[in-house]
Amino acid sequence: LTSSGEAHMVSVTLKSDTSRRAIAIGHVAFSNSETLLAVKNALIKKGDVLGTARLAGIMAAKNCPALIPLCHPILITAVNVDVRLVEPTAKTGDHGGVEVEAEVQCTGKTGVEMEALTSVTGALLTVIDMVKAVDKGTRMTDVRMVLKEGGRSGRWVDAAWENKSN
Amino acid sequence: LTSSGEAHMVSVTLKSDTSRRAIAIGHVAFSNSETLLAVKNALIKKGDVLGTARLAGIMAAKNCPALIPLCHPILITAVNVDVRLVEPTAKTGDHGGVEVEAEVQCTGKTGVEMEALTSVTGALLTVIDMVKAVDKGTRMTDVRMVLKEGGRSGRWVDAAWENKSN
Amino acid sequence: LTSSGEAHMVSVTLKSDTSRRAIAIGHVAFSNSETLLAVKNALIKKGDVLGTARLAGIMAAKNCPALIPLCHPILITAVNVDVRLVEPTAKTGDHGGVEVEAEVQCTGKTGVEMEALTSVTGALLTVIDMVKAVDKGTRMTDVRMVLKEGGRSGRWVDAAWENKSN
Amino acid sequence: LTSSGEAHMVSVTLKSDTSRRAIAIGHVAFSNSETLLAVKNALIKKGDVLGTARLAGIMAAKNCPALIPLCHPILITAVNVDVRLVEPTAKTGDHGGVEVEAEVQCTGKTGVEMEALTSVTGALLTVIDMVKAVDKGTRMTDVRMVLKEGGRSGRWVDAAWENKSN
Amino acid sequence: LTSSGEAHMVSVTLKSDTSRRAIAIGHVAFSNSETLLAVKNALIKKGDVLGTARLAGIMAAKNCPALIPLCHPILITAVNVDVRLVEPTAKTGDHGGVEVEAEVQCTGKTGVEMEALTSVTGALLTVIDMVKAVDKGTRMTDVRMVLKEGGRSGRWVDAAWENKSN
Amino acid sequence: LTSSGEAHMVSVTLKSDTSRRAIAIGHVAFSNSETLLAVKNALIKKGDVLGTARLAGIMAAKNCPALIPLCHPILITAVNVDVRLVEPTAKTGDHGGVEVEAEVQCTGKTGVEMEALTSVTGALLTVIDMVKAVDKGTRMTDVRMVLKEGGRSGRWVDAAWENKSN
Repeated sequence: LTSSGEAHMVSVTLKSDTSRRAIAIGHVAFSNSETLLAVKNALIKKGDVLGTARLAGIMAAKNCPALIPLCHPILITAVNVDVRLVEPTAKTGDHGGVEVEAEVQCTGKTGVEMEALTSVTGALLTVIDMVKAVDKGTRMTDVRMVLKEGGRSGRWVDAAWENKSN
Repeated sequence: LTSSGEAHMVSVTLKSDTSRRAIAIGHVAFSNSETLLAVKNALIKKGDVLGTARLAGIMAAKNCPALIPLCHPILITAVNVDVRLVEPTAKTGDHGGVEVEAEVQCTGKTGVEMEALTSVTGALLTVIDMVKAVDKGTRMTDVRMVLKEGGRSGRWVDAAWENKSN
Repeated sequence: LTSSGEAHMVSVTLKSDTSRRAIAIGHVAFSNSETLLAVKNALIKKGDVLGTARLAGIMAAKNCPALIPLCHPILITAVNVDVRLVEPTAKTGDHGGVEVEAEVQCTGKTGVEMEALTSVTGALLTVIDMVKAVDKGTRMTDVRMVLKEGGRSGRWVDAAWENKSN
Repeated sequence: LTSSGEAHMVSVTLKSDTSRRAIAIGHVAFSNSETLLAVKNALIKKGDVLGTARLAGIMAAKNCPALIPLCHPILITAVNVDVRLVEPTAKTGDHGGVEVEAEVQCTGKTGVEMEALTSVTGALLTVIDMVKAVDKGTRMTDVRMVLKEGGRSGRWVDAAWENKSN
Repeated sequence: LTSSGEAHMVSVTLKSDTSRRAIAIGHVAFSNSETLLAVKNALIKKGDVLGTARLAGIMAAKNCPALIPLCHPILITAVNVDVRLVEPTAKTGDHGGVEVEAEVQCTGKTGVEMEALTSVTGALLTVIDMVKAVDKGTRMTDVRMVLKEGGRSGRWVDAAWENKSN
Repeated sequence: LTSSGEAHMVSVTLKSDTSRRAIAIGHVAFSNSETLLAVKNALIKKGDVLGTARLAGIMAAKNCPALIPLCHPILITAVNVDVRLVEPTAKTGDHGGVEVEAEVQCTGKTGVEMEALTSVTGALLTVIDMVKAVDKGTRMTDVRMVLKEGGRSGRWVDAAWENKSN
């Protein structure tokens, strides 16, 4: 038995504590035209879709080290989750859906990319949970990191996203 | 203040305990051609990508009620998570990626769709975590339920997925 | 060493599975007159106080067995948390506050009184967290069970609460 | 959709790491005269009430960020929970009850007020759980922060509590 | 890629709900003669060793599905944890130690062996934590299941343990 | 009521943040000769024993403050868990078993001994869970800390273990 390929939590012991930030985005695409209307008109039986998804996203960021086996625990210092209903677009397809953007900050030895991605995912899963009684075909799509700042590797940004944001 | 639109955990008290099953799928698309090779050749620094993702998916199914605010706690009776490396396809794009399929079973008053979706998502986030040192542009895509059995509403299946599986 | 007085989770193995329900209530009393206005006018920096407290209450009900050492795990089948701003009253004192009522249901071998009380408490703590930047003297008061149904001991209700509710 | 009123975890990224301390107190009031005697004489079926409540309070402090949606995770450096049976007083009413005082310390970017309050509440809920077989009318009352030290806003103390403690 | 050897949560969907019970035992052996005296005389700085270990054992039983990746979640109906200081014996060696016995019950589709073992382990780790300031060489030893009842495979008992218990 | 012997989380507020490291080891002893063969030949129904145990050990290290009541939360910076099948030896007895060694690092105010011990225990319990269908008599044995570095008390090492490792 060799140790090659064996899972482990890589050491960040020697890294320095710096301010770090990450932003991730993602989408839910509805599969029929009534879902968007039902959310807009507050007709979803489970209640407020966007507000519940936002809080789920915030709390998911804190649950990241419990979900992702090799993630380091980290002290998050800020979480912003933006949850928006969107009309039909290239991303969400013919029936519109929901767009989520999550920003997470920390001061620590490792980045918060996974926290931002887990936050987006928690918010999107919550949207699916809330609309699934009226839309079983909802899908989560295009979830990814778009910005990462701080740490030795410096700033990384998705150019397309940055252009669109400006 | 009215109660319309207020979030709540809907009552399943009067539903009967029946066997239920759900399957969900999802994908990770790599953003450069070295990632697929690195995973194949066990060159990822954090270790075994597919095995770690599989276990993360199983444990994520158990974490579902902690992540999704309005989900009912439920006694899962089985979880199977299939994690496969895939060559470039329509789903994963030009650089290939990973395909995950999770099946969850329970006997209870409510279904396991969200458990299956959370399982897929937990596995995919873990893949992203493990390859992010070599591929910051990885994206999660096309995560959705494809089968649901048991309970009052009966069987529901995504026809395209069923044809492909057969 | 005798076993008298030693903590243990009492056995409910031989109890039968029945529908059970519990309602608990509780209050937060603000300590200055600006707090009520700030919540009413959505001027609290952390955001939506009542909606956040409601979700915190729902999720707290699920966390009950993790918080209360000798509580049995249980499958909650419904949670409703009502969170209301209240003008100055006997309960909340001169500056008004928030009133929370949580109803929890289950089908199982033991009741959901502690789940209802934990739900109320989680919602009230969240209110305190959100207003503490403007009101350090906020206090939680009169948290108690008011109704319990199902199980061998049958129905129990707080008469004063029942009269007021009708 | 505007962002006003939307819940978020406020940024403490730019705050400095300092020693912080908070003390919170709270009470349980029994509803009949036998409860106090039963606890005193170790006749409670679930076992040692005060010791179990103390540990529940300590562990609750660690669970604070999981319970309170917008709380930052923090590294607690000390927790002391004092749990005392009390004879009938103004706070606990005609049948006596339990008084809890919890002190929490940390070194970090944000205070531990919510940790202290969650600690008190966890201890009090545990008391209620242990005596509820003999006292369904037990109520939690007057839970509040009494001291806060460290951080930019400096020392804050409840004068009445400080006088009584001295 | 074949599925042989891949981890999964085996299906218990078709098993019937029956009463199940398991008992596990385990020991901590102190490495110097002062430790036993210090525990006996309540000189341990962290406080009450046996009471804290007992509660840790009870709570650990509830945490089992979060710790053991392939364990099914289960509704525990009773937990008894017996924690005893022991004089030097064959099991604990020359300096004595602590003996823990945990009994867990449930009604469900799968047994509670792992819950009983996790309970014993949680209690023993807590003993080690509390004495480690005075005894770094403490070791946990001979942790095992001794009884299992209920379910298709019926009763299993460790004969040596049963003889000693009678 | 005096406070002597009452459990509390001791204060580490005034300790300085330093790099710390701990290593713990432990063993599982199989009770029949087929178990070792079954694991070697990947015939265990639940799947990959060693890989699952390794991940369970890593995740258990993160769960330490939730399991051990008086442990301080800490930011782990690295976890390595080595899980090896072993032929019959003095430690594992006539039928061989599994040997686990876990190393945990942090930068903080308190050590990671309990994290290392919890990691070892989580891995060993997982081994027992996976083989228990074929070996009910498996036992966990000789779990202990062997190295501790950093902090005021400096380096501590088990001489026998160090000699064997070199």
